[in-house]
Amino acid sequence: MTKNGKGFCLWFTGLPSAGKSTIADILTPELRKRGVKVEVFDGDVVRTNLSKGLTFSKEDRDINIRRIGFVCDLLTRNGVNSIAAAISPYRSVRDENRKLIESNGGAFIEVYVSTPVEECEKRDVKGLYKKARAGQLKGFTGVDDPYEAPLNPEIEIKTQSEDPQTSALKILSYLESKNLIPTATKGCSCGCQCGK
Amino acid sequence: MTKNGKGFCLWFTGLPSAGKSTIADILTPELRKRGVKVEVFDGDVVRTNLSKGLTFSKEDRDINIRRIGFVCDLLTRNGVNSIAAAISPYRSVRDENRKLIESNGGAFIEVYVSTPVEECEKRDVKGLYKKARAGQLKGFTGVDDPYEAPLNPEIEIKTQSEDPQTSALKILSYLESKNLIPTATKGCSCGCQCGK
Repeated sequence: MTKNGKGFCLWFTGLPSAGKSTIADILTPELRKRGVKVEVFDGDVVRTNLSKGLTFSKEDRDINIRRIGFVCDLLTRNGVNSIAAAISPYRSVRDENRKLIESNGGAFIEVYVSTPVEECEKRDVKGLYKKARAGQLKGFTGVDDPYEAPLNPEIEIKTQSEDPQTSALKILSYLESKNLIPTATKGCSCGCQCGK
Repeated sequence: MTKNGKGFCLWFTGLPSAGKSTIADILTPELRKRGVKVEVFDGDVVRTNLSKGLTFSKEDRDINIRRIGFVCDLLTRNGVNSIAAAISPYRSVRDENRKLIESNGGAFIEVYVSTPVEECEKRDVKGLYKKARAGQLKGFTGVDDPYEAPLNPEIEIKTQSEDPQTSALKILSYLESKNLIPTATKGCSCGCQCGK
């Protein structure tokens, strides 16, 4: 939480299969163990609850990312933290969300998961790169749709040189250094690392 | 806020021009004066930020109402209150939202603004009844699209027999009686009715 009682928004961005959700999934329970209120918006949550019916056109992608930003802002301005883990390929809309959230006192932390496309394609978690290369999927980010990397992300994660646990710890350290979360105390009597 | 630190959701439902937004607009600043954190989802906010692209088919109306419920739940389960002021014509989806919000500890308060269709049509705030009667607008609730009144709303507001200020006070009294908001103390030294 910020000094003024507002939340932070960890905004993950990166290519499909870059590792955004994997890292978010490690980070989230660790934050909750420390008593940090956090809501997560990954692909599944968003598709089911916020963006049903939207396509992958630039216009619809922008609406989707703005919508996630709107919800993250609702939370951060009320002191609740959020994690967004969507490709969010366009710089301008990410920056719009930053502006919105910061204008209401929230902390916007852009986490660039910078895994190169070759590596993402090797992993191909959902088999979508294969489909895109075969022409069965049009407008796939990294294949035939653009991805605009952040220019000044607060955090860059290089998944080729570190494992997801290390990446999650790096983000926790960043949040601690900005006094946005309590520090973990290994000696906590109940062993829960709640930071108390 | 509930005993367990969760928020409440005031869910207004009623025909177009029933008075939902008018009452919500009086209620909201009064709640904020008392230091109550509240976010409002009326037609404009929702159309701009959550439901762009949705039509007025039953399927899309349901998606829209579920989406508002999803966002209200995100807030209430984190201790932030919300006000939804949408027609929300279908009982089953309103009940779904109640179930979701209550399952996470939030208080769901259905506010039925029961203004009869004849009176709503007389007011016709946005001139939409006129258009619907002229056949220029299809699927308009109250004209050629159904409205299912709540069976057991927590609060019923009869706008024909009371003014919006009185209705807002009635809702405040309800929230006070359930210990969901602090009571207003007229003698507050700063005159802000913050309840302290």
